Amino acid sequence: MGANIKKTQDGDLALLVGRSHKTFIVRLSPGGKIQTHRGVLNHDELIGRPWGSQVLSHQGSSFFLFQPSLADLLLNLPRNTQILYPKDIGFILVTMGIGPGMHVIEAGTGSGAFTTALSHVVGQQGHVYTYENRLEMQRLAIKNLSRLGLENRVTFHLGDISQGFDQQDADALFLDLPNPEDYISQVRAALKPGGFFGSILPTTNQVSRLLVALGRQDFAFIEVCEILLRYYKATSDRLRPTDRMIAHTGYLIFARSVHPIQGPVEEIAPPNIQADSEPD
Amino acid sequence: MGANIKKTQDGDLALLVGRSHKTFIVRLSPGGKIQTHRGVLNHDELIGRPWGSQVLSHQGSSFFLFQPSLADLLLNLPRNTQILYPKDIGFILVTMGIGPGMHVIEAGTGSGAFTTALSHVVGQQGHVYTYENRLEMQRLAIKNLSRLGLENRVTFHLGDISQGFDQQDADALFLDLPNPEDYISQVRAALKPGGFFGSILPTTNQVSRLLVALGRQDFAFIEVCEILLRYYKATSDRLRPTDRMIAHTGYLIFARSVHPIQGPVEEIAPPNIQADSEPD
Amino acid sequence: MGANIKKTQDGDLALLVGRSHKTFIVRLSPGGKIQTHRGVLNHDELIGRPWGSQVLSHQGSSFFLFQPSLADLLLNLPRNTQILYPKDIGFILVTMGIGPGMHVIEAGTGSGAFTTALSHVVGQQGHVYTYENRLEMQRLAIKNLSRLGLENRVTFHLGDISQGFDQQDADALFLDLPNPEDYISQVRAALKPGGFFGSILPTTNQVSRLLVALGRQDFAFIEVCEILLRYYKATSDRLRPTDRMIAHTGYLIFARSVHPIQGPVEEIAPPNIQADSEPD
Amino acid sequence: MGANIKKTQDGDLALLVGRSHKTFIVRLSPGGKIQTHRGVLNHDELIGRPWGSQVLSHQGSSFFLFQPSLADLLLNLPRNTQILYPKDIGFILVTMGIGPGMHVIEAGTGSGAFTTALSHVVGQQGHVYTYENRLEMQRLAIKNLSRLGLENRVTFHLGDISQGFDQQDADALFLDLPNPEDYISQVRAALKPGGFFGSILPTTNQVSRLLVALGRQDFAFIEVCEILLRYYKATSDRLRPTDRMIAHTGYLIFARSVHPIQGPVEEIAPPNIQADSEPD
Repeated sequence: MGANIKKTQDGDLALLVGRSHKTFIVRLSPGGKIQTHRGVLNHDELIGRPWGSQVLSHQGSSFFLFQPSLADLLLNLPRNTQILYPKDIGFILVTMGIGPGMHVIEAGTGSGAFTTALSHVVGQQGHVYTYENRLEMQRLAIKNLSRLGLENRVTFHLGDISQGFDQQDADALFLDLPNPEDYISQVRAALKPGGFFGSILPTTNQVSRLLVALGRQDFAFIEVCEILLRYYKATSDRLRPTDRMIAHTGYLIFARSVHPIQGPVEEIAPPNIQADSEPD
Repeated sequence: MGANIKKTQDGDLALLVGRSHKTFIVRLSPGGKIQTHRGVLNHDELIGRPWGSQVLSHQGSSFFLFQPSLADLLLNLPRNTQILYPKDIGFILVTMGIGPGMHVIEAGTGSGAFTTALSHVVGQQGHVYTYENRLEMQRLAIKNLSRLGLENRVTFHLGDISQGFDQQDADALFLDLPNPEDYISQVRAALKPGGFFGSILPTTNQVSRLLVALGRQDFAFIEVCEILLRYYKATSDRLRPTDRMIAHTGYLIFARSVHPIQGPVEEIAPPNIQADSEPD
Repeated sequence: MGANIKKTQDGDLALLVGRSHKTFIVRLSPGGKIQTHRGVLNHDELIGRPWGSQVLSHQGSSFFLFQPSLADLLLNLPRNTQILYPKDIGFILVTMGIGPGMHVIEAGTGSGAFTTALSHVVGQQGHVYTYENRLEMQRLAIKNLSRLGLENRVTFHLGDISQGFDQQDADALFLDLPNPEDYISQVRAALKPGGFFGSILPTTNQVSRLLVALGRQDFAFIEVCEILLRYYKATSDRLRPTDRMIAHTGYLIFARSVHPIQGPVEEIAPPNIQADSEPD
Repeated sequence: MGANIKKTQDGDLALLVGRSHKTFIVRLSPGGKIQTHRGVLNHDELIGRPWGSQVLSHQGSSFFLFQPSLADLLLNLPRNTQILYPKDIGFILVTMGIGPGMHVIEAGTGSGAFTTALSHVVGQQGHVYTYENRLEMQRLAIKNLSRLGLENRVTFHLGDISQGFDQQDADALFLDLPNPEDYISQVRAALKPGGFFGSILPTTNQVSRLLVALGRQDFAFIEVCEILLRYYKATSDRLRPTDRMIAHTGYLIFARSVHPIQGPVEEIAPPNIQADSEPD
């Protein structure tokens, strides 16, 4: 926490937030320009300003200058697929215990949103191995990660995972694919003993199919849940939820690879730690 | 991802999960014993076993052996206060962009659950400064962090924050106190320009009071939200939500310290990025 | 359940539902015409058709012909105010026990949506007394109720309720106003002993003010709740919630007028019958 | 609304609510006694008292005396099965348009909770036909309805519905059975043209099976939804949701019997009137 971080510098990633919350993420460099619908901002006028400053475009429109948070990066990521949302990513990371120094595998890469989150939290000592079978998606993800300076923490694999993953003993493995049930033996081979598997699926039918596959492959402590995020209008004297909300992104499924003494792991029910469990 | 992590070692932190999900977190050491309601487990029989193994107590009861995730650590933390839940912690970390290398301030420490999460994610290069005015709570938190080997990433302050924080230019600052509205000028002095403030409050009245205080102190982009976590019974052919769930932990409030050109920041509405905003 | 109700008749209220669920509610009469964006439908071709029939406009567009349900009527009501939604109306009616033969008071009338629901369920033996102080709103409500043939079950009052209601001993009384806390003594005078009071309010601040007022006027068994309605995509092999939902309409408040033996009713907590109550 | 309803009378159904919301529903009769865990209440001391009165047991414990609402009746119904909850019942009645004078069919009867609600709202001019194949359940339901004086509005059928219903042209038909998909042709034969079908099912798998069956039998405008009820602690200066809530009772499914001109009704998507519909 030194004085050096108080002001913007050449090379910093910056978030500009205008009226009605139109946002721009740019890497500051001398001579650069940001074209907005409300006028031009010159990088030279932004470099050396304290973070949090209000700046004006040449048309006089107001913008605020911030260091982007992980959520800012994710919500502004150039994408051409559905991406994981911060509400789901936060819970996935905490539940699967993904943190500094860890080695994690992900498939598919998609636009690279979850890859961004993973490479952010594993830090410089950790590593992310990500698989994608569509070349154009991989290219977008590489571009997105490179722009954020995170590409050196990620190994990008192009191709199908039906032949298995190149890694073993991963701390955690996450599948963001429509048919994770088809790859559970490959997952088991790549995960370290006791390691965490996770997935997100939009439909209940997909969840049912994945549960069948997990039960057959010595995964236990299976959890299924969903995260609902509800915003409020931040007005002190008229506090109330917003009128509308996102009702669904996907169901989250978590499981741990286990090594039973013999035979199948009969009846290891999900914990549902935060909910009491009444009989049906 | 080396072979060394596949098996338990002397000194490892281990999670044991028994039938009906009774859990124990222990640090393995030769000669140690774990007393459970279903018999004794000797550390010597656990050390050197692959993670994920099924082990038996002297009474023959089954337990599984795992490396604890952050969520495991939080949910098993010895506590004598209400703690933050993983669902809220995950979203707070992603929204406030807290990751490896960051310097963050927190008050109050409480039982140390959020301190544990923060020190986990900032890694060895980051640091957490935590404030608490009840000696017995601080002692419990220090004990909890030390048990997890995270105490060297944390500076524990004892005392009231009304006189201000000892740090400046923190990347992020979180207040888990009943009256955060009383400390907003102190928060502003300790946060770096553009830095993220966050808080969690159980009642709507507290949220209203905090919103008033934030508006007076050049905080903008204020968001209020809540996270609902709903578990499902993980049964493929009878998939359904659990009967009951936790309906409320707290409202989350986020804001960014800003430096307007002059005068108050009029009308910077909350973004509510994930919800469209209709008129009332 | 006779054959007479199987087919449409002159004078019947009919619901027409086209592609993409564009709906029309009309009263069938010989010679009538329905102008739609997809062509004209002649009443003469609809009269005498079985309910549930598929009919075609002169342009060949498909419509289905139904008897409108209460929800259909409410969702198609011409309105110039926010109206109560079926999800809230259903719970209000069941909670307050409003049914055939009852006499209920409502303020304000607004567009007449809740008036419609009330007059529907009290039947021919019951009656609804509704108050509104805006002439143009009252006119719209009278027009809406008359169109549905329900106007003879309703007495429309024009004017302020601060001078009290003209009725006494009402079975139930509902306030759909921004400031119900200002009229609680008037409510008490109009309700029968032990009668049910209800209200709906969009903000938490309004709820807090109403709770203060109710506590001062011998109302007890006060309940505050909200109803969330979540739709699913009705596809058998891709079952999932819709992407978005209405996040908030209003908080519902219910209370019962009581006659304590003496002094204030101290500490009659809300029942929250469907939720267990842990300490804060 | 006459003075006659202000005071309790011999033969009235009464609700007594004690401290901590222990409730009793009794029919008042001279000489009767109510045994509570906090002393005895004599009917003779209750008859002639104003509704809403506070009364004392012989031990001095306080009770309040009310006319029970429909929700009170439902929540206090002697039962030995899972019953429909008021939150679901209210929405079902409004959506299916069930009101005074209607003729409705229900299977299975169960403990009679929904039968109670139906017979309450159809009034003296309407009628309910209910089917149950377990004799002991039917007996309980008959006892429950008789106690409330509603038995003359209900025809109780004992037996399986696989042979079809005895009625035709019902305004609405509701199945509260585990396998409604097995009876859709019987439903269609009993419903009037264009009539409303409804069901409630706990699991997603059951919903999927029902959707397949409905699509095959000329039902359209199919809706699937769920109702979540969240209670708040009714404290003006510490307003907040309760800690826990019921997370799931069942999924509600509604559909309308249609008569397409020819061939299957292709692509009549669910309306989801209250939610906007984005592409997957």
